[in-house]
Amino acid sequence: MNNFEEICSLIGKDKATMNETVLLNHSKDESDHEAVEPDIVVFPESKEDVVKIVQYANKNQIPVVPFGAGSGLEGQAIPVHKGISVNFERMNRIVEVRADDLVVIVQPGITHMQLNEQLKKHGLFFPVDPGADATIGGMASTNASGTLTVRYGGMRNQILNLETVLADGRIIQTGSLAKKSSSGYHLNGLFVGSEGTLGLFTEISLKLHGIPENIVAARCFFKTVRDSVDAAAAILTAGIPIARIELVDSRSIKAVNDYEGTDYPEEPTLFLEFHGNESGNKEDIDLIKAIAEEAGCLEFLFETDSLKRATLWKARHGMNYALRHGSPGLASLTTDVCVPISTLPDNVEFADSQLDALGLKGGIVGHVGDGNFHVMILFDPASHEQIAKAKELEHQIVEFALKSGGTCTGEHGVGIGKRQFQRQEHGDALDVMIDIKKLLDPNNILNPGKVLPAGIEQKI
Amino acid sequence: MNNFEEICSLIGKDKATMNETVLLNHSKDESDHEAVEPDIVVFPESKEDVVKIVQYANKNQIPVVPFGAGSGLEGQAIPVHKGISVNFERMNRIVEVRADDLVVIVQPGITHMQLNEQLKKHGLFFPVDPGADATIGGMASTNASGTLTVRYGGMRNQILNLETVLADGRIIQTGSLAKKSSSGYHLNGLFVGSEGTLGLFTEISLKLHGIPENIVAARCFFKTVRDSVDAAAAILTAGIPIARIELVDSRSIKAVNDYEGTDYPEEPTLFLEFHGNESGNKEDIDLIKAIAEEAGCLEFLFETDSLKRATLWKARHGMNYALRHGSPGLASLTTDVCVPISTLPDNVEFADSQLDALGLKGGIVGHVGDGNFHVMILFDPASHEQIAKAKELEHQIVEFALKSGGTCTGEHGVGIGKRQFQRQEHGDALDVMIDIKKLLDPNNILNPGKVLPAGIEQKI
Repeated sequence: MNNFEEICSLIGKDKATMNETVLLNHSKDESDHEAVEPDIVVFPESKEDVVKIVQYANKNQIPVVPFGAGSGLEGQAIPVHKGISVNFERMNRIVEVRADDLVVIVQPGITHMQLNEQLKKHGLFFPVDPGADATIGGMASTNASGTLTVRYGGMRNQILNLETVLADGRIIQTGSLAKKSSSGYHLNGLFVGSEGTLGLFTEISLKLHGIPENIVAARCFFKTVRDSVDAAAAILTAGIPIARIELVDSRSIKAVNDYEGTDYPEEPTLFLEFHGNESGNKEDIDLIKAIAEEAGCLEFLFETDSLKRATLWKARHGMNYALRHGSPGLASLTTDVCVPISTLPDNVEFADSQLDALGLKGGIVGHVGDGNFHVMILFDPASHEQIAKAKELEHQIVEFALKSGGTCTGEHGVGIGKRQFQRQEHGDALDVMIDIKKLLDPNNILNPGKVLPAGIEQKI
Repeated sequence: MNNFEEICSLIGKDKATMNETVLLNHSKDESDHEAVEPDIVVFPESKEDVVKIVQYANKNQIPVVPFGAGSGLEGQAIPVHKGISVNFERMNRIVEVRADDLVVIVQPGITHMQLNEQLKKHGLFFPVDPGADATIGGMASTNASGTLTVRYGGMRNQILNLETVLADGRIIQTGSLAKKSSSGYHLNGLFVGSEGTLGLFTEISLKLHGIPENIVAARCFFKTVRDSVDAAAAILTAGIPIARIELVDSRSIKAVNDYEGTDYPEEPTLFLEFHGNESGNKEDIDLIKAIAEEAGCLEFLFETDSLKRATLWKARHGMNYALRHGSPGLASLTTDVCVPISTLPDNVEFADSQLDALGLKGGIVGHVGDGNFHVMILFDPASHEQIAKAKELEHQIVEFALKSGGTCTGEHGVGIGKRQFQRQEHGDALDVMIDIKKLLDPNNILNPGKVLPAGIEQKI
């Protein structure tokens, strides 16, 4: 029997395919990294299926690449060394809502929007909101975050336990259902963000939060991008527990006005949100308005109406699509640096001016409350000159961030595109990471070619 | 030359001693685990000193045991296999306050009270507040937490970077100064809570928080311990961002009244605190008061006066000492389970009733907002029967917690006393932990005899 037949005999032939269209759909994500088709796509329905697939792959040294919604921005789901793509769409159940514990246990294939839809009736929500409707498994794999992370934390802060299948087929529980623990080594933290290179998740336990009694959104715009980031830094150091504070530059505002039909002033803008009780929010907003005005805010507008609030956040989440939509035929490369807040104005201003200086299209948006911002660099994929300029700008932005004490990726993960910066960012700590990879995946079957720098494969 | 002479020649003879009194002072912590003296105590003054000590120890297979304030409750600082005790008291500087980044970089020997004293003038504070004035290094090593953890998170949530000396003398940076990162494997999480068994910290970067504009404390007491815990669970699930919510049972209230001269009603009590702005706190408190009264609160009292508030938290933090003070001659054993909130009433009621049923003295206090509670079990160290009963009760409490989906230690760490529960709690994940220990410390020189179960040493 060949690999496909053997896998079919192990898990059932309705759970594996070599259909060309399916292979094509598992060859890429939302990045512009080169597509590579897997040899086989499997659709496990249980952890037992996952164990069988991984054990077979390990025995036969075949790469195993987990696949969620395919919405990644760094090529994590692309099977660069071919092999088996493991699509978790049939493992998308809520296993248990433990409302009294503010905990939910899910399978990895559920998306964050599907999850929140089910949580509403409990008065609870899950706060990690990347732009795309990613799966919880994918979000755990890249340590995703989003606009609410400044208040609630990213994936690593929400995860209590990961049921994980290791390269040799053992199933481990990386944590417990306790809200905190000092027992043993913190495997939760190690496996979150490991991008399928250390194990495959089959069940995920998450913290939940009560839907706030009162939510107010606001937007305020500025003359320069520097003013807007200075204002954000001032708001943060005032110690006010803001729920969202997002930067959108004038290029992105223009793109979203064109795409969504909004009429936001086309200036550097902060989108804000406050979660709390009514009187507390009122007091916080008065203070923040004063700080923003002091920092040069031209106008401060509220969106108390829930529809307008929804429009605002839909616009923000759709920024990526709006920018691409406005430039058909162009490819994109998205940076994701995260830097100490005090260095954010310099970092953003540098990116802003270089985008113009290099004559590239694009836009800047950012979770500025965390010091995390994205430069979407658009380029003509047929122009060697533009490709070179886009890559040069990416390098410059990452260099600036690392010199500021920051990181090359705040939330998108390393995948393929950020491997080149791993040695520079982590120094000798990278050797510890490589040793951990070798320890847990000696045959290098788990998502090979990701996270660790190119050239490491041979050593593993 | 013997070991002592060689170490003196490496780091200077004023930084090492074999003085009997000093050895004795490094033989124990605040637990009742058996004291063991180290062979040598060293006082490094720089990371270079630490590297030299560790390299020498690794070459000569001598145990290295980090020592902070000696305030641990699980024997982490006891050199059970003798060797070198590394006291960090001379590495106690603030390296840099980065107020605009809400970040501070410190050496491991500074205590949390010393740190907060220095932060006041910046309007900032560090929120992890264990009962003792532990060092930041010790707190990072055990993933310590405290009364404010329900709002701000424990040590693992605060740590951005650890400069760490590995067993072979390499220095690594486990993170960066960015507030979040998806770059590489999360070594921060792995090293926090590793209790000196994977590396020694020489510099620690921490998140800071703005001192809240308005702080209100309150206490409310109940007829039964179950009522008080039910009230805590109801408050938490209402989604109100409370800053502190602490359970103190009637035994502990009595002990603290005797010790501190307070006149708190000797009933199961919740101590509460709210951080925010004035109007927001007022609205939250009105709601919480209603929830507590619904749950059977007998009286709800405010401590707006800052002196009375300080007295209240001094009383809470001194509970451990108060209970011991009230029973001179008795030894103590402290449990530290942390369980899902919905199971907390059953867990606490079980412990409460068993303490009585076994005829043991003691008391129960807890960070109930996190599902974490401590039973301080007092026993006569000369009575085999009492020792057996105390250990039996500890086992029962941990068994109950693990069956509830909880952990054997929420914040004190594994040390010596919780090693016996590691296999039961972690199952096959323990083997991954053992492999990581072998990988990073092949000669088993870093705090041997801690975290991993007894019997593992031979295998390492």
